[in-house]
Amino acid sequence: MLAEIKGLNEECGVFGVWGHPEAAQITYYGLHSLQHRGQEGTGIVVTDGKKLKGVKGEGLVTEVFSADAIQELEGTSAIGHVRYATAGGGGYDNVQPLLFQSQSGGLALCHNGNLTNATALKYQLEAQGSIFQTSSDTEVLAHLIKRGGVSSHKERVKNALSMVKGAYAFLIMTENEMMVALDPNGMRPLSLGKLGDAYVVTSETCAFDIVGAEFIRDVLPGELLIIDDNGFRSEMFAMASNIAMCTMEYVYFSRPDSNINGINVHTARKNLGKQLAVEVPIEADVVTGVPDSSISVAIGYAEATGIPYEMGLIKNKYVGRTFIQPSQSLREQGVKMKLSPVRGVVEGKRVVMVDDSIVRGTTSRRIVSMLKEAGATEVHVIISSPPIKNPCFYGIDTSTKEELIASDRSVEEIREIIGADTLTFLSVEGMVEAIGRKEDGEHRGQCLACFTGKYPTEIYPSTVHPYEKV
Amino acid sequence: MLAEIKGLNEECGVFGVWGHPEAAQITYYGLHSLQHRGQEGTGIVVTDGKKLKGVKGEGLVTEVFSADAIQELEGTSAIGHVRYATAGGGGYDNVQPLLFQSQSGGLALCHNGNLTNATALKYQLEAQGSIFQTSSDTEVLAHLIKRGGVSSHKERVKNALSMVKGAYAFLIMTENEMMVALDPNGMRPLSLGKLGDAYVVTSETCAFDIVGAEFIRDVLPGELLIIDDNGFRSEMFAMASNIAMCTMEYVYFSRPDSNINGINVHTARKNLGKQLAVEVPIEADVVTGVPDSSISVAIGYAEATGIPYEMGLIKNKYVGRTFIQPSQSLREQGVKMKLSPVRGVVEGKRVVMVDDSIVRGTTSRRIVSMLKEAGATEVHVIISSPPIKNPCFYGIDTSTKEELIASDRSVEEIREIIGADTLTFLSVEGMVEAIGRKEDGEHRGQCLACFTGKYPTEIYPSTVHPYEKV
Amino acid sequence: MLAEIKGLNEECGVFGVWGHPEAAQITYYGLHSLQHRGQEGTGIVVTDGKKLKGVKGEGLVTEVFSADAIQELEGTSAIGHVRYATAGGGGYDNVQPLLFQSQSGGLALCHNGNLTNATALKYQLEAQGSIFQTSSDTEVLAHLIKRGGVSSHKERVKNALSMVKGAYAFLIMTENEMMVALDPNGMRPLSLGKLGDAYVVTSETCAFDIVGAEFIRDVLPGELLIIDDNGFRSEMFAMASNIAMCTMEYVYFSRPDSNINGINVHTARKNLGKQLAVEVPIEADVVTGVPDSSISVAIGYAEATGIPYEMGLIKNKYVGRTFIQPSQSLREQGVKMKLSPVRGVVEGKRVVMVDDSIVRGTTSRRIVSMLKEAGATEVHVIISSPPIKNPCFYGIDTSTKEELIASDRSVEEIREIIGADTLTFLSVEGMVEAIGRKEDGEHRGQCLACFTGKYPTEIYPSTVHPYEKV
Amino acid sequence: MLAEIKGLNEECGVFGVWGHPEAAQITYYGLHSLQHRGQEGTGIVVTDGKKLKGVKGEGLVTEVFSADAIQELEGTSAIGHVRYATAGGGGYDNVQPLLFQSQSGGLALCHNGNLTNATALKYQLEAQGSIFQTSSDTEVLAHLIKRGGVSSHKERVKNALSMVKGAYAFLIMTENEMMVALDPNGMRPLSLGKLGDAYVVTSETCAFDIVGAEFIRDVLPGELLIIDDNGFRSEMFAMASNIAMCTMEYVYFSRPDSNINGINVHTARKNLGKQLAVEVPIEADVVTGVPDSSISVAIGYAEATGIPYEMGLIKNKYVGRTFIQPSQSLREQGVKMKLSPVRGVVEGKRVVMVDDSIVRGTTSRRIVSMLKEAGATEVHVIISSPPIKNPCFYGIDTSTKEELIASDRSVEEIREIIGADTLTFLSVEGMVEAIGRKEDGEHRGQCLACFTGKYPTEIYPSTVHPYEKV
Repeated sequence: MLAEIKGLNEECGVFGVWGHPEAAQITYYGLHSLQHRGQEGTGIVVTDGKKLKGVKGEGLVTEVFSADAIQELEGTSAIGHVRYATAGGGGYDNVQPLLFQSQSGGLALCHNGNLTNATALKYQLEAQGSIFQTSSDTEVLAHLIKRGGVSSHKERVKNALSMVKGAYAFLIMTENEMMVALDPNGMRPLSLGKLGDAYVVTSETCAFDIVGAEFIRDVLPGELLIIDDNGFRSEMFAMASNIAMCTMEYVYFSRPDSNINGINVHTARKNLGKQLAVEVPIEADVVTGVPDSSISVAIGYAEATGIPYEMGLIKNKYVGRTFIQPSQSLREQGVKMKLSPVRGVVEGKRVVMVDDSIVRGTTSRRIVSMLKEAGATEVHVIISSPPIKNPCFYGIDTSTKEELIASDRSVEEIREIIGADTLTFLSVEGMVEAIGRKEDGEHRGQCLACFTGKYPTEIYPSTVHPYEKV
Repeated sequence: MLAEIKGLNEECGVFGVWGHPEAAQITYYGLHSLQHRGQEGTGIVVTDGKKLKGVKGEGLVTEVFSADAIQELEGTSAIGHVRYATAGGGGYDNVQPLLFQSQSGGLALCHNGNLTNATALKYQLEAQGSIFQTSSDTEVLAHLIKRGGVSSHKERVKNALSMVKGAYAFLIMTENEMMVALDPNGMRPLSLGKLGDAYVVTSETCAFDIVGAEFIRDVLPGELLIIDDNGFRSEMFAMASNIAMCTMEYVYFSRPDSNINGINVHTARKNLGKQLAVEVPIEADVVTGVPDSSISVAIGYAEATGIPYEMGLIKNKYVGRTFIQPSQSLREQGVKMKLSPVRGVVEGKRVVMVDDSIVRGTTSRRIVSMLKEAGATEVHVIISSPPIKNPCFYGIDTSTKEELIASDRSVEEIREIIGADTLTFLSVEGMVEAIGRKEDGEHRGQCLACFTGKYPTEIYPSTVHPYEKV
Repeated sequence: MLAEIKGLNEECGVFGVWGHPEAAQITYYGLHSLQHRGQEGTGIVVTDGKKLKGVKGEGLVTEVFSADAIQELEGTSAIGHVRYATAGGGGYDNVQPLLFQSQSGGLALCHNGNLTNATALKYQLEAQGSIFQTSSDTEVLAHLIKRGGVSSHKERVKNALSMVKGAYAFLIMTENEMMVALDPNGMRPLSLGKLGDAYVVTSETCAFDIVGAEFIRDVLPGELLIIDDNGFRSEMFAMASNIAMCTMEYVYFSRPDSNINGINVHTARKNLGKQLAVEVPIEADVVTGVPDSSISVAIGYAEATGIPYEMGLIKNKYVGRTFIQPSQSLREQGVKMKLSPVRGVVEGKRVVMVDDSIVRGTTSRRIVSMLKEAGATEVHVIISSPPIKNPCFYGIDTSTKEELIASDRSVEEIREIIGADTLTFLSVEGMVEAIGRKEDGEHRGQCLACFTGKYPTEIYPSTVHPYEKV
Repeated sequence: MLAEIKGLNEECGVFGVWGHPEAAQITYYGLHSLQHRGQEGTGIVVTDGKKLKGVKGEGLVTEVFSADAIQELEGTSAIGHVRYATAGGGGYDNVQPLLFQSQSGGLALCHNGNLTNATALKYQLEAQGSIFQTSSDTEVLAHLIKRGGVSSHKERVKNALSMVKGAYAFLIMTENEMMVALDPNGMRPLSLGKLGDAYVVTSETCAFDIVGAEFIRDVLPGELLIIDDNGFRSEMFAMASNIAMCTMEYVYFSRPDSNINGINVHTARKNLGKQLAVEVPIEADVVTGVPDSSISVAIGYAEATGIPYEMGLIKNKYVGRTFIQPSQSLREQGVKMKLSPVRGVVEGKRVVMVDDSIVRGTTSRRIVSMLKEAGATEVHVIISSPPIKNPCFYGIDTSTKEELIASDRSVEEIREIIGADTLTFLSVEGMVEAIGRKEDGEHRGQCLACFTGKYPTEIYPSTVHPYEKV
């Protein structure tokens, strides 16, 4: 499953609120509901109209922010960020929002996504004397804004945005306004809502439900929203030509209670399960899903086939950064960490096991073997997405092509490696159909690059091996 | 739902291992899998054959034990405990296992359950000069053992057990042996397993799956197991006359992947859902369960009725002791903490909402209102247990009769209070049937006292208002 | 110097206040001024007239008590304790005050000193079924009080005190009164003061100055003070026959700003220095003292001899439990931890180095060698007390006789071992004279046992090797 | 006394070592001995020849660095810093060394002192697009170096140094070399030593004694030392015209065991005391010094006058950032925090109280009143420096002129305010004479600006109100 990739880079969550007396606390709850998008670190920056002030740290939202810290973040507007665990480039400094104080005022930025030309831009800026504090893409945008010459702040932001390439959802805040920008391909989810008189932006709509806000609309590809005490206004900084929402947001990342471009994620996943039922009829006794992302898929599959859904796999909660890893000897004796099979459910049964994807195959092999040891007589693996054959350059570190099990292997070869009785991937067409972005009268594209190799944007040489430390 | 009771007293989890080179680490993983039974505090005591040594603290397993702490707990045998948050009687001292050092050796104890005559015994012991360090029932047993005169340790333990009344699963450890005792009515789950050459005991069998152990058998009511380096032997310290396993273990407490007396909890819950489908046919568009305990019930109900199961309610993860509570004003503005409705799923729908029980009714009212605000046109509440009309004296603090909404109200009155369109409780017979302890050839009783008022043991005056601080 | 003994057992400090609205905070400052008497752990128990409540922990006063913790200790009376680092017997449980809750009320105790018959009493109590939570002497008294039968609390306390032997200053608190007891030989300092309407007791009078209290009088040997809301009254629980204040309180333990039985400690030390000048005339260029206890002595010696006092040795501040110990290789390269010589002061000079005592000799040897490496041409060591030839059983763990360098060696042998040019100990008579307890019209004895072997009380077999773990 | 100034800005300590296998640990002990120069924060950056790596944090050396942290700082060279508590401009980001990573390598910097043209330089750099991460002067130098064009690193450092004005001792480290620079007036102490084959630099020589290093020589005004694996070489980046060592380093800042330009600080202070004896003969019974800086002065005064030195004032140790401040009511009742009088020493006595300086006068008034309340019949205050009449722009935040009690008041007026019986300041000439920099054949100047108003460098408009937040 996709979670096996530790290096998921920059797949983060952003949240902002403008014009609310308890802005920091609202942001705290918003970020908490986006916690699944990033557990490495988190931060909040507020403005009281006069000064930017922030708190950030490594760890979960509940670990980084104390009640005291939130109370000291007085202000009526705030932006916040949760950051995913990354293979490299971690550490306190890289936790966002980044906050820059200058004698002419402060600037705070955070983003979700990945800039494909960050390395090149950084070389140029350093050659001109810029000093970078972090290894984060976000800082590149800050320097581009600051170097933007004598034009207005808004013009400098638009110029800077026009120079960066890739997938991004940016929040930018000064003492007096918040700017919200989505890349021209609309590759990352970003929505605007209202909470009383305040405006709220979030990576996922689940945050609206948590804080009691009302959904207004999704931010448009290439749009720059400027929010201040007079309300919000919209400008386009780029032509939105080729809409390409990341498919993995539906398949894996987002919370089931979020809607992406109007489509509920849980419903989309149930439909993926129903589509799997159409594409692959299996004789089996029980259906089970790998928690959490594949539960909805499994229920959809069970509903469509009549095979009963059972909890054949249990996810251990409370596993955080302080969890003690089992010694090698305990691991060999069968100590489970994250997932455990439910013997009472799978023993003597033919099991359909649903997962979201196969990246390196090691996790799938472990789960299949776990189910068999618990007594499953057959394990049929069905995957709610097609084989991942190509790296992602937009924020999901599916590493180099060499590490992708499907890059040069047939389905049968993969099946053999993971030890399943049968293995079925969903077809690209079936997946697109089930998610349902096509059904709409108006066309709404989605990024299928990791399956098809057709990238929606140009790829730069320096990103061929993405996220390598330089 | 039952989780609304903060004062759930002594509903804890115990885990022990004898004869394993990494006893403390095994216990760590075992306790981690029992974390749902108690989040207030946790402890581990080990023996290396010469000395008992322990670590304990308030908080989660992952918070209390550092890798260093576990490493320093060298020894080949261990007992551990997770403790539920209690209204009173908390604090470091009450965290178990209790460890007593004396010049003749150490004694460590922990238990799950509640002694109904603890107060009376404590008065007698204090009158004789005993000093209690804790307000825990467990310490009463320790004093009874120590005062047991000149007979053998085993005889003194058996005498002490014969003096305590109530529901309990005890682990008692000295330098050289571990003793395991279950109350004569068998009111708490307790199972024995094997991990290589080591013996393992646990409140729930899910811990066996996690540590890779093999289930041997359940501990018998009134049985005292003595485990040492020669293996285990069994003695009965009481006649097991009236078997009465706590029904709530199936309905609410236990993990779905545990088996209690051979019955899988997830399966029992699905059957409760199917039985509800038989007892109460409802016209509705979607079925949703209150996480986590009612998900299985809802899936069973959906399977039996054909109404699709959807994720209409989402539970916020990561909520621990450090979570910042929303201010009153934010709460009124609709900030959700633990549960949030999924608008995309319930809007415009007739919703069947499944919960495990209704205690005070406040939580149910809040969830119903949450669903309606999210657009549900009808909310039909179905409960997978009968009305709770009587307090529990065996470890589940359903408080005084006055606080139980069902103690003197009709179902219709409760429905009105919680604001549901319809409200149905499962019948006592239906529940017993569905859980399936009756189906067996051999009779296996269960405690129904909170529903029927028929207590399986004598109740002492001092326990009429249970858990009052003295 | 005496500080080289890590195992200084039970040389602690106590502080209590009765009848002040900010009792916990007063106690905090009092304990802070007694911090030099114990850095291992500290605790405070308060009463609000209804309930005892406490906080304790390992570490310094400023580490253990947060502002929040002190604020939560609401109450008008309090007792507190600072505990010395001990070789064994440490840990959270042993930190005092010990607090025992029973159904008839609470009991808190703490003490400074050492009971010589604790082991024997503990054996007897355990044989009768008592369970000890700690390895602390203090708990023995608690059990003796609790076992005292049906008589009044005060009678039971007096009976208990009559059973314990040794050197002690006890504070005992219930919801309604504080009891203060000093052993019949008066071996430990303990004084009574007044702070507005409140009564204050402390191990050292420096705490009075810190909290702004007024000294009333010293507690008498064998006296039991009972303090409650009606004031204080005095009863004698034992005949005070043989007054024997610990000499080391003047020489080493107490703060220079404290008065013990009316004699200022700094002044006593200056007089020790002047007496040294009388007993041993040395030709030298500078006098320097080993900080902190010997600074006053060195100044007295300089004043009497005319040799200038200089800071030839500097003590590193801020060295606490978190200080990282140098690696062996760094230690060999000369990294200093606690003391460093001042080259600019000692280079090319004949140095008189004053210390309070020589126990094992290792510290003295290190300091002498340090001074010589820094360029001192001669180092003359003068000690403000006589050779320590006998173990202490009253709270100062001068270990077994074998470890005392002076137990079977001549002064010349010791001089050779420590590498000094000359070595002089103060005579017993000179020391007694200089401290000045004899000058008084009324005779006030002092304990000289470690110098002379004449113990003021009977010594029990189990204390021959004191503080051995049993 | 000078310690009453909370806003002491940038009076910090630096330490560096090049070529030692345990560089981080050596730096840890060095910084620990410089802890008196700054308690707000501390950091260490190491290089292993390939990469710079650092740890920093707010708090004491023993609080910020764990043993694990030091161990992970593998490398053979290191620079470190301790930072003084500042009124504004604190926080994690400002803790030094600052560490900048770029694609062409790393750069770490720290300094002690204050740049008088930092604000102007910062405006210029920001106008050119530089983004500042901190409000620290140090970062200005980093940007100047980075912007220095295509010349060599050394040339860019020299150019950058030529652009900054003020008082500074800089350490600059890359992967391959350490650079050490002192301002052209030599206003801050900075010395070079040797530890085996390694080179060591430090703000104060006491660090040499602690780590076992040998003093080589002081760094020269306007000198740039370049240290690498081939040894060290010296270049001058500026003409040293007007030597002006900060007088307060002798009077207040430095540790008594340090030598500044060859003069031992304790000795200098004793001489200040002897000079006071010459300038002001007083009839008194005891002399006492305000700890810690005035103890040496008091001893010198006592030696010269024959009035006995006594410990009339005691400083409370262990007071750190976690110390709980007394409530207002307790403060009024006389709770002492930092200093307490020794009643047994001052009662009924005519007291000479020695302090280092008077800034606002509030501390002096409190001490005088404390001594009188403790029974002193007369209190004669003597100050070991002249009246401070002018603000310092070189790192000692004596604030604006308005806050300096001596800026527009006569000695008699100040005496009345602080409530002393007599008040004497040392004369400028007497102070210069006593410290003894003049005695030398070669002339070595010292900065007397705060006394005389004659600043050794040009002062820039933006520094007239130093340290104001912009």
